[in-house]
Amino acid sequence: MPKAVAGPEIERLIQLLARLPGLGPRSARRAALHLIKKREQLMTPLADALAVARQKIVVCTTCGSIDTRNPCTVCTDPRRDASLIVVVADVADLWALERAGALNARYHVLGGTLSPLDGVGPQDLTIEALVSRAHGEEVKEVILALSATVDGQTTAHYITDLLQDAHVRVTRLAHGVPVGGELDYLDEGTLSAAIRQRTPI
Amino acid sequence: MPKAVAGPEIERLIQLLARLPGLGPRSARRAALHLIKKREQLMTPLADALAVARQKIVVCTTCGSIDTRNPCTVCTDPRRDASLIVVVADVADLWALERAGALNARYHVLGGTLSPLDGVGPQDLTIEALVSRAHGEEVKEVILALSATVDGQTTAHYITDLLQDAHVRVTRLAHGVPVGGELDYLDEGTLSAAIRQRTPI
Repeated sequence: MPKAVAGPEIERLIQLLARLPGLGPRSARRAALHLIKKREQLMTPLADALAVARQKIVVCTTCGSIDTRNPCTVCTDPRRDASLIVVVADVADLWALERAGALNARYHVLGGTLSPLDGVGPQDLTIEALVSRAHGEEVKEVILALSATVDGQTTAHYITDLLQDAHVRVTRLAHGVPVGGELDYLDEGTLSAAIRQRTPI
Repeated sequence: MPKAVAGPEIERLIQLLARLPGLGPRSARRAALHLIKKREQLMTPLADALAVARQKIVVCTTCGSIDTRNPCTVCTDPRRDASLIVVVADVADLWALERAGALNARYHVLGGTLSPLDGVGPQDLTIEALVSRAHGEEVKEVILALSATVDGQTTAHYITDLLQDAHVRVTRLAHGVPVGGELDYLDEGTLSAAIRQRTPI
């Protein structure tokens, strides 16, 4: 939006919205106009929600997830299996696994993956806290739910090495054909893994 | 995000973000996490910007545009040609024309287009105010910068009829080949119009 058209407050709102992932300059303008049109129904609640989030959201000192309480809802849930820790790179991965609903475990959020090229070393992640948690008496298995990328797998290997002294089983996610996926669109690596790890019907 | 994973404040933030145009449930989660990670750099400024916008943004009673002052920046800009009013359906169209920079005129924002199917009649738009402005002494031309859709053109015809008594020239945007557009992707109507309204080189 050119500067002469409206006050700087509107331009500032657009610029901030454009910094959200998924919104570019054009969609940020659309979002700003939408907010302005829906002032009572959307702008006011969103401003309030952001103010509340800013005050209340904390990082769980146990698992690294975000919540409005510390320790977080997951860490304090007595119905979750405390013997199972699922290691994820990011909170988004934790949410994705919870949506899948395949687990009733606790989590450990690393805060990223090891990436020498980006200057991310072990000290930048919560790996030390994970190792100390894995030595806890009740922990029996650590599932490394990390991306099947070079960085993800490097991180998985690094953690596996560190956990050798802890008396836990270390596992990782299965490779294979995505549910609903068509074979001829899959890469060779995935297909090879799916063949190697085939399961009886 | 399942409810048991974190406090309801985070879920509420995600739900509100998902109501922005261009963001779905998945990208709203990404946006929320991004905001939480960039608390000082993005969440706090955005919350402040929304609070300011909520308080300050008003609709200009002259032209229908939005601004933080009334009459708006455009209406009070003495360098703009007051003899020329550009009629647009929406504030987004005004911004688009200003980005093009082809004009140094004043605007009139209708707030939509006539659409009998959606129940939008003349009383729902700022047409009456436009007619009264067009009768003003200094106004010489009204450019109808409305979409080349059925609703847009219906609105243009309706306004043209109402402006017959005002001593103004009523014009509309040229139809033709978009700059950078390839001929064989264009529809027949656009091509016919581009031929009919051809210009000497």
